[in-house]
Amino acid sequence: MFYQKATRIVFFGDSITEAAVKPDGFITRLGEAIAKKGLTDKYELIGSGIGGNKVYDLYLRMDDDVLSKNPDVVVIWIGVNDVWHKTSYGTGTDPDKFEKFYVAIIKKLQAKNIKLVLCTPAVIGEKTDYTNQQDGDLNRYSQIIRNLAAKYNCDLVDCRKIFLEYNLKNNPENKEAGILTKDRVHLNEQGNQLVADKMMEVLVR
Amino acid sequence: MFYQKATRIVFFGDSITEAAVKPDGFITRLGEAIAKKGLTDKYELIGSGIGGNKVYDLYLRMDDDVLSKNPDVVVIWIGVNDVWHKTSYGTGTDPDKFEKFYVAIIKKLQAKNIKLVLCTPAVIGEKTDYTNQQDGDLNRYSQIIRNLAAKYNCDLVDCRKIFLEYNLKNNPENKEAGILTKDRVHLNEQGNQLVADKMMEVLVR
Amino acid sequence: MFYQKATRIVFFGDSITEAAVKPDGFITRLGEAIAKKGLTDKYELIGSGIGGNKVYDLYLRMDDDVLSKNPDVVVIWIGVNDVWHKTSYGTGTDPDKFEKFYVAIIKKLQAKNIKLVLCTPAVIGEKTDYTNQQDGDLNRYSQIIRNLAAKYNCDLVDCRKIFLEYNLKNNPENKEAGILTKDRVHLNEQGNQLVADKMMEVLVR
Amino acid sequence: MFYQKATRIVFFGDSITEAAVKPDGFITRLGEAIAKKGLTDKYELIGSGIGGNKVYDLYLRMDDDVLSKNPDVVVIWIGVNDVWHKTSYGTGTDPDKFEKFYVAIIKKLQAKNIKLVLCTPAVIGEKTDYTNQQDGDLNRYSQIIRNLAAKYNCDLVDCRKIFLEYNLKNNPENKEAGILTKDRVHLNEQGNQLVADKMMEVLVR
Repeated sequence: MFYQKATRIVFFGDSITEAAVKPDGFITRLGEAIAKKGLTDKYELIGSGIGGNKVYDLYLRMDDDVLSKNPDVVVIWIGVNDVWHKTSYGTGTDPDKFEKFYVAIIKKLQAKNIKLVLCTPAVIGEKTDYTNQQDGDLNRYSQIIRNLAAKYNCDLVDCRKIFLEYNLKNNPENKEAGILTKDRVHLNEQGNQLVADKMMEVLVR
Repeated sequence: MFYQKATRIVFFGDSITEAAVKPDGFITRLGEAIAKKGLTDKYELIGSGIGGNKVYDLYLRMDDDVLSKNPDVVVIWIGVNDVWHKTSYGTGTDPDKFEKFYVAIIKKLQAKNIKLVLCTPAVIGEKTDYTNQQDGDLNRYSQIIRNLAAKYNCDLVDCRKIFLEYNLKNNPENKEAGILTKDRVHLNEQGNQLVADKMMEVLVR
Repeated sequence: MFYQKATRIVFFGDSITEAAVKPDGFITRLGEAIAKKGLTDKYELIGSGIGGNKVYDLYLRMDDDVLSKNPDVVVIWIGVNDVWHKTSYGTGTDPDKFEKFYVAIIKKLQAKNIKLVLCTPAVIGEKTDYTNQQDGDLNRYSQIIRNLAAKYNCDLVDCRKIFLEYNLKNNPENKEAGILTKDRVHLNEQGNQLVADKMMEVLVR
Repeated sequence: MFYQKATRIVFFGDSITEAAVKPDGFITRLGEAIAKKGLTDKYELIGSGIGGNKVYDLYLRMDDDVLSKNPDVVVIWIGVNDVWHKTSYGTGTDPDKFEKFYVAIIKKLQAKNIKLVLCTPAVIGEKTDYTNQQDGDLNRYSQIIRNLAAKYNCDLVDCRKIFLEYNLKNNPENKEAGILTKDRVHLNEQGNQLVADKMMEVLVR
């Protein structure tokens, strides 16, 4: 008799990931796509998103919420609040500290032989003329994540780039929401589908 | 006997304009360029910049510092602090209020038959990969100013665009200062010269 | 035949004043108290509050919303957002600018022989151990208003002081909301009644 | 022959602690007071302050800068920047995260049998009429630290309380600096002496 353990994937992030396990969310959609391929037994998807989380929140709850689950793969999607909270609460994260905590998470998870997929923060506002307030800062933090993915040999789902390219094609009226998000930040159906598709490419192959 | 009044130009702005009357500043350089053309008698240049000013500071001191001087032309260069102070003091200016005060200034000056030259805020950081923290916000406020210039028939010196284009050519190492600014915001010699050249094109013809 | 014009009072402020015309609001309650005294014909109460307003919003809409109504008395209650927006949007108001715009409002209204009642901002959080985040800043802006009331001979309803004294007596558990506010800022029934009572003392005599 | 190891004390903090090893600083003064008592051999004082540090900076460098030195006692003085950076950079620390990182530091140091002395953040502005912008927030974070000192059995140097009491007696003109600080935050001679005196009471007995 033969038994092959399913690949356990934990999605570790903020409110965007928290909503991803809802019926329309990207984790749910990813599960459906996996089912369509007849691979349901091979993948176990676990959402671990908490609204408002910044990189150091992930760091602080990594033992309880991720390591305790013994995952094979962890998908880290964080950064929107690190940027956004600078003006909405005065408690954003300095870019150098963002990197330090991100590296601490990477090292601790890789030490357990967990495969990592890093995601860049997508958008705070979908305008395509580069006038969203946090565009520069999101680009900066995304660049930090891209560099870390390269340096630490992690897979990358470059949501920042993916969302911008999609909007450049599909947002001709320069709207600030309604294309991939419902409120400038949180994913609508189309956004969840786009993310599910891109995750599929990286996670299931 | 014939006497022709010189064109009196007031430069109305923040610390960048405040520094512009120094020996290396763009107002001084503009004066020198005018002298070279033998036009010194035809232009009177007056600096009225105060460090830290935002659009509503200009509004509040417009009577005392500009109208009292009976200018023919006013060059308005404001916006960096309206964006910057959001994170450095928590007292930036909302974009809709920025526009309202800007319009109030335009209307009051135009009611006195003063010709206006509007300038977009140049840079807070000279990096060319669009990762300067305030890039999105500076683009947004610049777009407001461009629209106002068009709507109210004002000349425009589009410093935001001019500086970006210059940096794309001359900042191959993606430095955040040292190309046109000495400290990410305030102009160095090259920055002052570039601004003087562009002002010359608009003001002296 | 004798006709005596009613005293027209405009309440000029932010969301707290905007809500004051609701059935439970302090303007409604004030009207009811006036009716009980049989003075309904002598007072006309007009609410002019807009959510999110800061001092310079009042300044910008003063002509349209207050002067156009030819009031005899204007009750100005502003300041919470000037402080609060520092961390919630990065667009609070510097204290020196707060004073300048406040003075501009006072001068313009007094030039029309309008009697003024100034109110200090009450609370952002009702904790009584002085640990509400904005306590120091609210005290500062309240002190500016108290000084202006004295300097420009205006009546004062010192809500900051009134609310603190009430909470010191009635908030033994150091709650941050629920005593005079429903959400740390906006008035509940008891808060509206307290304000109506204090306004009554100043406005009707 | 008898050898008694000196008590090794590390002062762990921000710019205030960084400056404390200068000739006039409180660590230097504490060393001099210890010398006067003829106890120089019994205490070894080590400064480990870095300008701009917040609680999570201490957390991140705890291994390298404190544990590596095998201290007997650690004096933790942090919090000013966690509050201040909310408006000066948009990157202050949420109070609940402040507590979480503080607890993580306490637990890790106490696990090594290190005795802890916690200090509350003193002042950002010395005005005594409770109108310093950050007064409420400093009170809040100080209360968190007082509670942690009680809960985890640490000694407490309550600088917030000590500085306020001193100013209430010695700052009759309600100045915002110049009594115990040179610039609203960093200690002048008198401030350093006051802290040295209070540290002496707790550390040397």
